Amino acid sequence: MRAAVAGASGYAGGELLRLLLGHPRFEIGALTAGSSAGSKLGEHQPHLPALADRVVEETSPAALAGHDVVFLALPHGQSAAVAAELGEGTLVVDCGADFRLESAADWADFYGGEHAGTWPYGLPELPGQRARLRAARRIAVPGCYPTAATLALFPAFASGLAEPDVVVVAASGTSGAGRAPKPHLLGSEVMGSVAAYGVGGVHRHTPEITQNLSGVAGRPVRVSFTPTLAPMSRGILATCTAPAVPGLTAAALREAYETAVKDEPFLRLLPPGAWPATAMTVGANTAVLQVALDERAGRIVAVIAIDNLTKGTAGGAIQSANLALGLPEELGLPLNGVAP
Amino acid sequence: MRAAVAGASGYAGGELLRLLLGHPRFEIGALTAGSSAGSKLGEHQPHLPALADRVVEETSPAALAGHDVVFLALPHGQSAAVAAELGEGTLVVDCGADFRLESAADWADFYGGEHAGTWPYGLPELPGQRARLRAARRIAVPGCYPTAATLALFPAFASGLAEPDVVVVAASGTSGAGRAPKPHLLGSEVMGSVAAYGVGGVHRHTPEITQNLSGVAGRPVRVSFTPTLAPMSRGILATCTAPAVPGLTAAALREAYETAVKDEPFLRLLPPGAWPATAMTVGANTAVLQVALDERAGRIVAVIAIDNLTKGTAGGAIQSANLALGLPEELGLPLNGVAP
Amino acid sequence: MRAAVAGASGYAGGELLRLLLGHPRFEIGALTAGSSAGSKLGEHQPHLPALADRVVEETSPAALAGHDVVFLALPHGQSAAVAAELGEGTLVVDCGADFRLESAADWADFYGGEHAGTWPYGLPELPGQRARLRAARRIAVPGCYPTAATLALFPAFASGLAEPDVVVVAASGTSGAGRAPKPHLLGSEVMGSVAAYGVGGVHRHTPEITQNLSGVAGRPVRVSFTPTLAPMSRGILATCTAPAVPGLTAAALREAYETAVKDEPFLRLLPPGAWPATAMTVGANTAVLQVALDERAGRIVAVIAIDNLTKGTAGGAIQSANLALGLPEELGLPLNGVAP
Amino acid sequence: MRAAVAGASGYAGGELLRLLLGHPRFEIGALTAGSSAGSKLGEHQPHLPALADRVVEETSPAALAGHDVVFLALPHGQSAAVAAELGEGTLVVDCGADFRLESAADWADFYGGEHAGTWPYGLPELPGQRARLRAARRIAVPGCYPTAATLALFPAFASGLAEPDVVVVAASGTSGAGRAPKPHLLGSEVMGSVAAYGVGGVHRHTPEITQNLSGVAGRPVRVSFTPTLAPMSRGILATCTAPAVPGLTAAALREAYETAVKDEPFLRLLPPGAWPATAMTVGANTAVLQVALDERAGRIVAVIAIDNLTKGTAGGAIQSANLALGLPEELGLPLNGVAP
Repeated sequence: MRAAVAGASGYAGGELLRLLLGHPRFEIGALTAGSSAGSKLGEHQPHLPALADRVVEETSPAALAGHDVVFLALPHGQSAAVAAELGEGTLVVDCGADFRLESAADWADFYGGEHAGTWPYGLPELPGQRARLRAARRIAVPGCYPTAATLALFPAFASGLAEPDVVVVAASGTSGAGRAPKPHLLGSEVMGSVAAYGVGGVHRHTPEITQNLSGVAGRPVRVSFTPTLAPMSRGILATCTAPAVPGLTAAALREAYETAVKDEPFLRLLPPGAWPATAMTVGANTAVLQVALDERAGRIVAVIAIDNLTKGTAGGAIQSANLALGLPEELGLPLNGVAP
Repeated sequence: MRAAVAGASGYAGGELLRLLLGHPRFEIGALTAGSSAGSKLGEHQPHLPALADRVVEETSPAALAGHDVVFLALPHGQSAAVAAELGEGTLVVDCGADFRLESAADWADFYGGEHAGTWPYGLPELPGQRARLRAARRIAVPGCYPTAATLALFPAFASGLAEPDVVVVAASGTSGAGRAPKPHLLGSEVMGSVAAYGVGGVHRHTPEITQNLSGVAGRPVRVSFTPTLAPMSRGILATCTAPAVPGLTAAALREAYETAVKDEPFLRLLPPGAWPATAMTVGANTAVLQVALDERAGRIVAVIAIDNLTKGTAGGAIQSANLALGLPEELGLPLNGVAP
Repeated sequence: MRAAVAGASGYAGGELLRLLLGHPRFEIGALTAGSSAGSKLGEHQPHLPALADRVVEETSPAALAGHDVVFLALPHGQSAAVAAELGEGTLVVDCGADFRLESAADWADFYGGEHAGTWPYGLPELPGQRARLRAARRIAVPGCYPTAATLALFPAFASGLAEPDVVVVAASGTSGAGRAPKPHLLGSEVMGSVAAYGVGGVHRHTPEITQNLSGVAGRPVRVSFTPTLAPMSRGILATCTAPAVPGLTAAALREAYETAVKDEPFLRLLPPGAWPATAMTVGANTAVLQVALDERAGRIVAVIAIDNLTKGTAGGAIQSANLALGLPEELGLPLNGVAP
Repeated sequence: MRAAVAGASGYAGGELLRLLLGHPRFEIGALTAGSSAGSKLGEHQPHLPALADRVVEETSPAALAGHDVVFLALPHGQSAAVAAELGEGTLVVDCGADFRLESAADWADFYGGEHAGTWPYGLPELPGQRARLRAARRIAVPGCYPTAATLALFPAFASGLAEPDVVVVAASGTSGAGRAPKPHLLGSEVMGSVAAYGVGGVHRHTPEITQNLSGVAGRPVRVSFTPTLAPMSRGILATCTAPAVPGLTAAALREAYETAVKDEPFLRLLPPGAWPATAMTVGANTAVLQVALDERAGRIVAVIAIDNLTKGTAGGAIQSANLALGLPEELGLPLNGVAP
């Protein structure tokens, strides 16, 4: 099958290409981008010598036509126009935000402008979602923080063990902020520093986390979400807490999580006593979880580590594409990471 | 005045010495340590050439006698015996945990063994605490995380704006874990990785945060505290949230924080729109704060950055010592940090 | 084919396992170690969930018997005894130093004790070496620095363009120093710091670089080698210079390098104007090179980036093992890295 | 005395301000900049709360007039025009390159355009230079790499122990590349990576190193200089080698270095067996050195660590300004660094 990548010179695009190079069923077709069109991919992704001499084309429907699957890693607001030109014969997997939210009001509040619509949400681990993705021709890949927070807490909400008053504090590597050079993303600024941003519920991933957890809980869930920027290139560590229902025991909580991850190829619940670190997931599509019951505070505390570019973006995209294309879900996706 | 430092070869000891070297009223007397006794300080603190040829003595009452102030930066459980040998004529400032907790039950639960007692708590910014410290001859320096969490939330609780259901998630640099070599603290392990530890309310700083906030609130406060280890040597960024009381407005919240920091020499509330980063505080005794009201989630979110070794340990120790010795509180303490 | 790894709980062992998991012809047999015998591999290599429940055995000839290939990642001095018990039917690939040096005098000078002997040197890119490795049953994997320095300069010496007065200065990630906890390897020490060590030609890799380049040049080459420790987990960047022969032109130098890398699967000479960075090689078996002629200084300057654990240790080991086992040299080895 | 800083929003400007805030004899006057004129300094230097509310003015002769000393931290080519408007009554200390080189031909080769001239070179440690600086009204602050390389090797050349064929390889933190956002300086690119740049003698600091060492040696010295970018914000570690003269002994080399640093307030030769790390110098004006004789290679190897922003720029500037203003050379300059 032929796969195209739009946005090939960015970080999400580069990760898509790295994974596609290791995928046994995909041949890499068109590589497109905006301002870097006309240059060689090697200038932008020097870690991918296999594609160093490929020329980046201008992103356009013509360039993306004729592929079995097109992965879009474009700035917000550009995916709808591109997808409209690609027929239903092409699977379109959008790593951007345009089609993630169900609520037009949320879209207006957090992104502004007109809501483009809602596509099947590319998180196979969500209860019931795998079947939907098998039939999908358009997929909205989740945001990186929502992937982390949802995977950390869905077992608690799906089993009715948590009250709907969630607090999520997450640390992300800088690649999540993209490749456009901005002063606060300079190495001199980020090294040796953890920084807050988007505090007070204003980060755009907030309504997406709320949507996911409310869907699982079957009732509205309130979410306080605070992202922070950590001095590393890759990885998200999210600490996710919710009040425990009365009478919850640590054993029952553990059992709910064990059940939830049992058949999931990319969810790994650590043995008791071990705790997630982002280093466990670098370059892997694996999410590493642990959960505890804090009896004094009356809270469930779930901690999760993912690679924001792999499970959090490109790996998640390919996992869903595998499903939609009738391939084994795990195909071509690394389970093991690169450490130390 | 002559100051001695016990534990001079560790990170807290090194920071005490760095600050004492820049303090106009202290002369550095005895430097003592355990296993590194007999070696030159330059082997342990090569960033302090001014003391490179000083020989480290064995920690003992004899070595520490005859000083106006003795700073203890010793492993837990060692301070009581040392302090007992130093008369009331000597100000003893303990950077360890032994005398921080008021509750013997908390001590037993979190540290084990017998409770040594309670000394005046070295956080001058706590309402009413400054006066107590001016009269103190023994001071228990707060833990680094409790310093951060308490300074972030005391304005909300002191003004009755927060409900007593706190969630704190904090990222710390590795120096907070000390200098004893352990596998998980190796550079290869910590670089490029944020890691969870002490999840579920089991970290020893939890009862101390609870004690402080409950004291300010005048009623029991529940605290869910999760520390994480970030890939940096210094700094703590703590995200601290609590439910807002009904009807709270962003303006009232801001005003409460502005009032709380107004006369505090080392608390800096950032202008609206700016958010704390640990890089703003490296080597400084300054705590940088910001606060937001998340109306959707109904929560106050306060974020604070401190240098765990300066305001979080050694700087806080000297700030309290200044008070107890009748010196200006700010004397010798850097307000400005080293960045980038 | 069945492969065993001795030293499975260390960094080199972990990288061998990561690569073997992705190799289509190897099945992973025994995993052995010293002090961590009896524990599960997941405790030591949490990034390898595929092997998390495998139990680590004690390193012994019995545990390692019955494999097609045994990879040794043991402390210096232990390989000889283990290899002696494994018959010629087993390919033994030693990642340690014991069998790298040809000169017993060099061994005595730099390592001390008795010289164990010399095995075929596992650097297929060395002129003539590939054929020797195809026939080998014992292979000495090069040191990480010698891999870098030799690959950077062999094109110049093989083509007679350089005078034998080499200066190599290299920066290495901390994983090269191993996993045993030592104070100077703590994250608090290495983050934010580049440090010198082994200055003045005393590093044990010095005679190995000298041996390699002298062999290529066909005459004695003098080597001044200085390693430094950089704040990253993986990677070596080596700057390697030698005086240019009189009359050398930049074009002739470039041509010699292009010729040298032309048929090499894992050597990549960057296009003119681009320079190596270790980030280009993380997790890949690729060496990235560039070369310049400094006419004012009369020197060739070759710069190379490798991943010390992949091409510099485990990848190089598997590359040579592929040759000795009659497999395609590139089989199972990643060409593309993980970035950013 | 009143000091103005032009370029106050950049990294060099921020470090000048940090040091001036701690200097007992300077009052901070005008703060000027280019595109950030009109904003508050706190937006650019949030680590300096003491100046947070100061407004940045547009750089102009009028704004800079009326100060005892003006520090220029401007892009290349802008200093001459500004300095021309400031009379001899004002000491002008230029942290840029415009007035460092003696040779107009070197300027044309490495910078292009017309040579602005030559000012007294602000490296007091150079033999004979201290006296010149005491009489100066215009000072050209050395580049950061030339500061490191010159301080590392001047003892060898001044005492006739080295042959004039120098190789310098240096690793710098990213702050040396300035604050203008460029893709290769993004945190995502620089963390976890050491990168080469300016290879082959093309870096603009090459002729400056050559000029300094040739001046000390009294004959032309050839210099091969390779800079690299390391994943840290601050610091330079330079490995500097030159052939030893015949018959040189390690003892004679050590003695030459001990003599050279004996009366220098900011040069620290480590005891035998210890080696420089940039962490020893963060925020300090101290240069930490060590030297070895590599008898096999016939080379002197000197290694030096400095903070590129302190001794390498702002601290060096103030050190020279102290001399020119008749103040004690060490006044207000930190000898001790911030570590870990």
